[in-house]
Amino acid sequence: MELIVKSMPAEVQAQALAWKREGLTVGLVPTMGYLHEGHASLIRRAASECDRVIVSVFVNPTQFGPNEDLESYPRDLEHDLKLARECGAHLVFTPTPETMYLPGASTWVTVEGLTRELCGKSRPIHFRGVATVVCKLINIAQPDRAYFGEKDAQQLAVIRRMTADLNMPVQIVGCPIVREADGLAKSSRNTYLNEKERQAALVLSRSLERGREMLEKGETDVQKVLDAISGTIAAEPMARIDYVQAVDADSIEPVKTLAGTVLFAIAVYIGKTRLIDNFYWKV
Amino acid sequence: MELIVKSMPAEVQAQALAWKREGLTVGLVPTMGYLHEGHASLIRRAASECDRVIVSVFVNPTQFGPNEDLESYPRDLEHDLKLARECGAHLVFTPTPETMYLPGASTWVTVEGLTRELCGKSRPIHFRGVATVVCKLINIAQPDRAYFGEKDAQQLAVIRRMTADLNMPVQIVGCPIVREADGLAKSSRNTYLNEKERQAALVLSRSLERGREMLEKGETDVQKVLDAISGTIAAEPMARIDYVQAVDADSIEPVKTLAGTVLFAIAVYIGKTRLIDNFYWKV
Repeated sequence: MELIVKSMPAEVQAQALAWKREGLTVGLVPTMGYLHEGHASLIRRAASECDRVIVSVFVNPTQFGPNEDLESYPRDLEHDLKLARECGAHLVFTPTPETMYLPGASTWVTVEGLTRELCGKSRPIHFRGVATVVCKLINIAQPDRAYFGEKDAQQLAVIRRMTADLNMPVQIVGCPIVREADGLAKSSRNTYLNEKERQAALVLSRSLERGREMLEKGETDVQKVLDAISGTIAAEPMARIDYVQAVDADSIEPVKTLAGTVLFAIAVYIGKTRLIDNFYWKV
Repeated sequence: MELIVKSMPAEVQAQALAWKREGLTVGLVPTMGYLHEGHASLIRRAASECDRVIVSVFVNPTQFGPNEDLESYPRDLEHDLKLARECGAHLVFTPTPETMYLPGASTWVTVEGLTRELCGKSRPIHFRGVATVVCKLINIAQPDRAYFGEKDAQQLAVIRRMTADLNMPVQIVGCPIVREADGLAKSSRNTYLNEKERQAALVLSRSLERGREMLEKGETDVQKVLDAISGTIAAEPMARIDYVQAVDADSIEPVKTLAGTVLFAIAVYIGKTRLIDNFYWKV
């Protein structure tokens, strides 16, 4: 079928409800566009599991702080439509801030607790914006399943918590990080890096790899693993640590010992570009 | 058909989704139980407009402040089931705080602006609790239409705003206040009143009637109308004013002149019992 492109929330909702009435299952892949191989893996997985796939492309202003990169965030809708079509999407939803946030809009969805650590520290309003827009996107697209990358592991935990707490009838599917051949996690923000920075950015995946190797060899002291990760990053002159933390994967509470699923997560500035990466360690 | 009674959110959601798949429309009437003729009017209206009607009976703890009447709020499930059945309900949803708020629940829905005035002043966490639980109930019951009484006019405005802001595919239906023969607005809290207080409580409807008569005779000075209402209440020794306000019916912002639809709303303590009443004035 032809790829449908729509920008009005009400039109997308009407299409989704029509599909649901026909008994079709719907998958949603929320994105900020500038789609890369990570997004492609989400869309392909959705297409393999759902009858209809809706990809949203929306650089959501309410999840950016005043000094963040809302204005410079890369955009390329033509490329996004092509990639979405090739990966099996049926509808691309391209709203504008004006159609998503009507005059007088004043409702926020907040998730407490899970948003205190990691990115919540340096991006205080970020997850309020994420939770609110994802709640809206789910209500618009009426998906049976919604797909998110594990690179944004805290976002994934927040959205799992929100949809469970608000009894939203949707299954949240987390998908593995997709990396460049040299290890750098795919991100639309990698486009900000110049050649030298691109090379320096490898310290993120390399430091995590070092931590994971220690765990595989039997290290059980969480702090030693974190220290090794931090030490590796500190040795790269172009890198500046925002955080290096080990938290419970569901509650995003800091952990001192290995139990359940532990998320080792880092955020690092390479020049002016802030990058994140992580891995899960299941005990 | 037999009245279905269920206490687990997931069971009610499964039933609602099954009805929707059959092409049936669903109406939701959220209540705190101890149903009276006001609730009955909502259920009958829902039954006349929808194929299936879900009535929820839940005294929601998160919308009560620490010194409010959560513990003493009247309950009578047997009576509620009988009334719901007689009015045409198909399912009564009777959750508990434990099934509605799972361990670790930490998501809130807040509506800013509309919750500053009127009841928002004396009940600071009330509307956060209302918005969150109504968001949950709508996600559970999947209604095409949800019915609310106009007695809680600020609640009605908050829920209209929330469902619009979050793109929830539900129509919010406001229904007129139902009154006792002598004018007192029906409320589960009227049961708190002793005989003398019951008589004194008539000052709410009487004062509003006085204000409305002034408007009907052509009074255009909002303050004069408010003063007349306040003066009437002040003349009743058992009454203590919480607020007497005129606000825009949609934004709940105070108004000084008549324009659009103005909500004249009051909250008055009769002894220890806090009662509310209001009327809309359309210009």
